Amino acid sequence: MADLAQIGVSGLAVMGRNLARNLARNGFSVALHNRTSARTKSLVAEHGDEGTFVPTETLEEFVAALERPRRVVIMVKAGAPTDAVIDELVPLLDEGDIVIDCGNAHYADTRRREADLRERGLHFVGAGVSGGEEGALLGPSIMPGGSKESYATLGPMFEKIAAHVDGTPCCVHVGPDGAGHFVKMVHNGIEYADMQLIAEAYDLLRDGLGASAADLSRIFAEWNTGDLASFLIEITAEVLGHTDAATGQAFVDVVLDQAEQKGTGRWTVQTALDLGVPVTGIAEATFARALSAHPEQRDAAREALPGPARGSVPVSDRDAFVDDVRKALYASKVVAYAQGYDQMAAASAEYGWDIDLGAMATIWRGGCIIRARFLDRIKDAYAEERPASLLVAPYFRDAVAEGQEAWRRIVAHAAKAGIPTPGFSSALAYYDALRADRLPAALIQGLRDFFGAHTYKRVDREGTFHTLWGGDRAEVEA
Amino acid sequence: MADLAQIGVSGLAVMGRNLARNLARNGFSVALHNRTSARTKSLVAEHGDEGTFVPTETLEEFVAALERPRRVVIMVKAGAPTDAVIDELVPLLDEGDIVIDCGNAHYADTRRREADLRERGLHFVGAGVSGGEEGALLGPSIMPGGSKESYATLGPMFEKIAAHVDGTPCCVHVGPDGAGHFVKMVHNGIEYADMQLIAEAYDLLRDGLGASAADLSRIFAEWNTGDLASFLIEITAEVLGHTDAATGQAFVDVVLDQAEQKGTGRWTVQTALDLGVPVTGIAEATFARALSAHPEQRDAAREALPGPARGSVPVSDRDAFVDDVRKALYASKVVAYAQGYDQMAAASAEYGWDIDLGAMATIWRGGCIIRARFLDRIKDAYAEERPASLLVAPYFRDAVAEGQEAWRRIVAHAAKAGIPTPGFSSALAYYDALRADRLPAALIQGLRDFFGAHTYKRVDREGTFHTLWGGDRAEVEA
Repeated sequence: MADLAQIGVSGLAVMGRNLARNLARNGFSVALHNRTSARTKSLVAEHGDEGTFVPTETLEEFVAALERPRRVVIMVKAGAPTDAVIDELVPLLDEGDIVIDCGNAHYADTRRREADLRERGLHFVGAGVSGGEEGALLGPSIMPGGSKESYATLGPMFEKIAAHVDGTPCCVHVGPDGAGHFVKMVHNGIEYADMQLIAEAYDLLRDGLGASAADLSRIFAEWNTGDLASFLIEITAEVLGHTDAATGQAFVDVVLDQAEQKGTGRWTVQTALDLGVPVTGIAEATFARALSAHPEQRDAAREALPGPARGSVPVSDRDAFVDDVRKALYASKVVAYAQGYDQMAAASAEYGWDIDLGAMATIWRGGCIIRARFLDRIKDAYAEERPASLLVAPYFRDAVAEGQEAWRRIVAHAAKAGIPTPGFSSALAYYDALRADRLPAALIQGLRDFFGAHTYKRVDREGTFHTLWGGDRAEVEA
Repeated sequence: MADLAQIGVSGLAVMGRNLARNLARNGFSVALHNRTSARTKSLVAEHGDEGTFVPTETLEEFVAALERPRRVVIMVKAGAPTDAVIDELVPLLDEGDIVIDCGNAHYADTRRREADLRERGLHFVGAGVSGGEEGALLGPSIMPGGSKESYATLGPMFEKIAAHVDGTPCCVHVGPDGAGHFVKMVHNGIEYADMQLIAEAYDLLRDGLGASAADLSRIFAEWNTGDLASFLIEITAEVLGHTDAATGQAFVDVVLDQAEQKGTGRWTVQTALDLGVPVTGIAEATFARALSAHPEQRDAAREALPGPARGSVPVSDRDAFVDDVRKALYASKVVAYAQGYDQMAAASAEYGWDIDLGAMATIWRGGCIIRARFLDRIKDAYAEERPASLLVAPYFRDAVAEGQEAWRRIVAHAAKAGIPTPGFSSALAYYDALRADRLPAALIQGLRDFFGAHTYKRVDREGTFHTLWGGDRAEVEA
């Protein structure tokens, strides 16, 4: 039985294909399956020399080609297609086999599937995989959820094919059932926020300096040598430096300014609302994309709504302005990460996942879209006692403290210059709300008690109270 | 059979009790039912002289006491309790009977229940009821969804017990199935935004002027004579003017500053995300409440995070500052309503509800929490052609144009003074994004194409494109 493959991959579109190649290149024998066998054949024809592939035509043949306990990776569209493959696969499997969903499933679906397969004596691993096509082939960041037993057999393989930073693999057992896909969802939400903040920095600089995209490319390239060093800043410099061959214009100026979304940003915000965790950075980023995609409203508003013309608010000291924007970007980014980490902490408590938050920073340092120098600092922040917020961890507290005056100047400048900075502004509002001695939420509670008898608590003694607003306005215990 | 009641109410907690009394006071005979009959008895004992009540002990007796087609109002907790009552009730009903859920159901539940009961030959009406206890008794705003036939028999009764403004009832047939509860949900979302904006205005004034709550009470009372005139501004003046008897302090200063939420704000934002409609005002308001309710984080941040001390940024011209805050509040409020209206329009298109948006403003003028002079202007804005956004309707466009410079000054002031104004700031960012010639979403699309081959569109020709970033950076049609 020496011919049995160590792992199988079903679903050989570009992500599945590249994961299978990555496994083979790392010395694992890989059984292959796809609904239509053309993809299986082309993979073997084109890349058969990269390792040991076992092509199969049917699911039965595929399952029979795997050593036990079987490790079956499925990489198909999230939702119904994933359920369809699982339903077909499960009757063919034996107790202790492991089904691994490497697609972008909603964590609630993963929880349901894990419970379902556990009842049947199987392991179900929902594994978030970040890094796109290239990451899948050369080393992604992998976030597997599921049972500890399943990680014992699967982990060494995933850790081998994952990206590595300083010798540490970008893969760790995240926690039970939906933990892996939850963390991947938050990763994507943070990615939304990160890109929105970069876009706002670009917009501010372009308007304030009247600079060309090529000039801005150089500024981002320089930023990439400092605290902001990250994959997204690096490729921002690349994209801004690119010239459109057809027109000779800056590439960014010929791209239609309507951003699309694939849903994980939305899921992140919806879930955060249920958990009661404010993730304003991700929400503003998601809504900014939604707004951009309403051209009929934008056309009407562009004509009708007055405001400062572009470039009409002069910047006196250009170097100082660039530095202010950099600091505002950094501070806003810390807020977005702090909020995302709060959301993971809340879910971990809610579902009993016991997620090691520092380890999440470790596995995001390579392979994935938000990989950044920054993440080493987050890892450090969670190394000892968990901070109440990333913002109060000493390193980030000091960094933001150093930049907060610049941040305030930039948000004020944007308001006066008519540049939309929903990400920068909401991050600053979050920072100021979090540090406030008192919030006007007290007035909101008073209003709610007035119109709906919703009651309130007092600052000076225990209990729940209601004022008889319609009567003599005496206070009663509720 | 002259004794049969015209309508029945099951669930006699305070809202159901007051709705039943309202019906009886308006001349309708009302059958009463409650799971425990003590509530039924006390209602009749205390208020039996207000009209014709038919108390019953069991659901069977209750159903038998109603004329046909029966009109059965249920007023119990949303979720499982509502399903439980429906399940018990349905087998006792006959074809053409009408079940009316006046609770705060999620519109998706209402859609499910309506489809279910329609299959069984019954009508199901999901009716949003706003106005709290007092509204239920004296005249609420009622937003009934469901079939046209059901409204033909139910409408005249609801229109009679609703609030009336200028002789027009605050009740109209909203649309099929979940339309009524959807509109009620958005109403509540707007209520969240409205209160958050008032709270920010209060906070800015209190800090900027160093004024007492009593002084601010007078400012809000004065605002209530102008464009901002509304129930919420009116009661803000009342709450701020109230002195706590126990301490002699301003009431607002003894209330704990942690706002609670009952879920409809959250639902509004979650639904808007699915519909792709930016509702940043409601989202920031919901998240501001969530933030306020994390005392452990706030305690840590209060100590650790630096920023301007309260009152440290002086206001030179006090009257001008008050006027600026008023204009910023008004403009931000227009944004919040514009977003809520966009959400109703999107849902109406999605579900084929054909909601008359102007009529929603009409029925919110009285009875409900957000009742305001303002709504007459919204009604006018939707009287003829539907505007692309409430912001571009002439009246609101001009009002916001008149206030936009003040709005910018206030957002800039808040940033520099360290006052959290997530509502004001995000509203201004929305305004500036909507009117922007170009958005930096173009850069986001470029980044997405770079790392994920997500493709982009161009401003100068049709098609979908991808740049070979890893290769020679030629552009290919995707």
